[in-house]
Amino acid sequence: MRKVSRLEKGLVQVYTGNGKGKTSAAFGLALRAIGRGLRVYVVQFIKGGFDYGEAYVVDKLSNLQLRAFGRGQFVTAKPPDKQDIKLAEEALKLAKSVVGSGEYDIVILDEINVALSLKLIDLEEVMQLIKSKPQHVELVLTGRNAPEEIVEVADLVTEMREVKHPYSKGIAARKGIEY
Amino acid sequence: MRKVSRLEKGLVQVYTGNGKGKTSAAFGLALRAIGRGLRVYVVQFIKGGFDYGEAYVVDKLSNLQLRAFGRGQFVTAKPPDKQDIKLAEEALKLAKSVVGSGEYDIVILDEINVALSLKLIDLEEVMQLIKSKPQHVELVLTGRNAPEEIVEVADLVTEMREVKHPYSKGIAARKGIEY
Repeated sequence: MRKVSRLEKGLVQVYTGNGKGKTSAAFGLALRAIGRGLRVYVVQFIKGGFDYGEAYVVDKLSNLQLRAFGRGQFVTAKPPDKQDIKLAEEALKLAKSVVGSGEYDIVILDEINVALSLKLIDLEEVMQLIKSKPQHVELVLTGRNAPEEIVEVADLVTEMREVKHPYSKGIAARKGIEY
Repeated sequence: MRKVSRLEKGLVQVYTGNGKGKTSAAFGLALRAIGRGLRVYVVQFIKGGFDYGEAYVVDKLSNLQLRAFGRGQFVTAKPPDKQDIKLAEEALKLAKSVVGSGEYDIVILDEINVALSLKLIDLEEVMQLIKSKPQHVELVLTGRNAPEEIVEVADLVTEMREVKHPYSKGIAARKGIEY
């Protein structure tokens, strides 16, 4: 049973920039929303096929769904690899279906900005997804290099700016913290 | 039973800036860490005495503790109110004890930067807390207006920069999203 009614008006949020905390902010938002009885779906672009700390908690939380599409490696190839395109397109297809169903109050499209900037998926399709979303659905788009058009259409945009990062001191990504 | 051993080296992370996502990033980090079997303690400065979405999920997650100190209203008074000082000092006292015990892998001091910038607590005491933390403990300090000295001593600093915010369009804070 729902503790709260649906959002009156769902907004479009964007977390971008080169700093740490974009995906974390989206998951923190999910945690808060679940606490209120809202339903959250996370579609992860590019990520996946790899083990992420978040994935282990999802099972424990009702009202939180997660699906990851990716090969478990950083995608940087230009022109993009066909397999990466295929996976990103599958992710977008799922995103459209989840958003369109209106069954979830918050839909997080994690790293979609990266998929867009690498041209794995079509910007026009994502713009269409945003424009046609049900009124009550909150959309959260994360990832660096958010396209100008996405920033333009979003209601809330935060840039995570890297002020200081330990990688530059030679400290590698740590299990439980960075992934 | 722990799924992972403790962190080899816990760092000091700071999330500051005027943009959205600082507390959310810390909670997202907590979620990931819990997924890995790490233990997390959240001490919330200023906040509390008010209902926050996050608080409702805490009970469902083992390995996550949360305590909030505050009167449920924004603290902006200068000079600071005595009751706000007292609550912030209690929060700091708990923080010292939690960090010092070494029993938690990640200690999140939510909004501590605000408590510092409002002079509710003493910067020197917080600097001492940071310097004397057990090696394996990761410290996460959130809140706008992080003092220069904190940024200096931190390993990882992210500034959440507000690019666009719906409040400026007259949209009020929404239950399940903003709190």
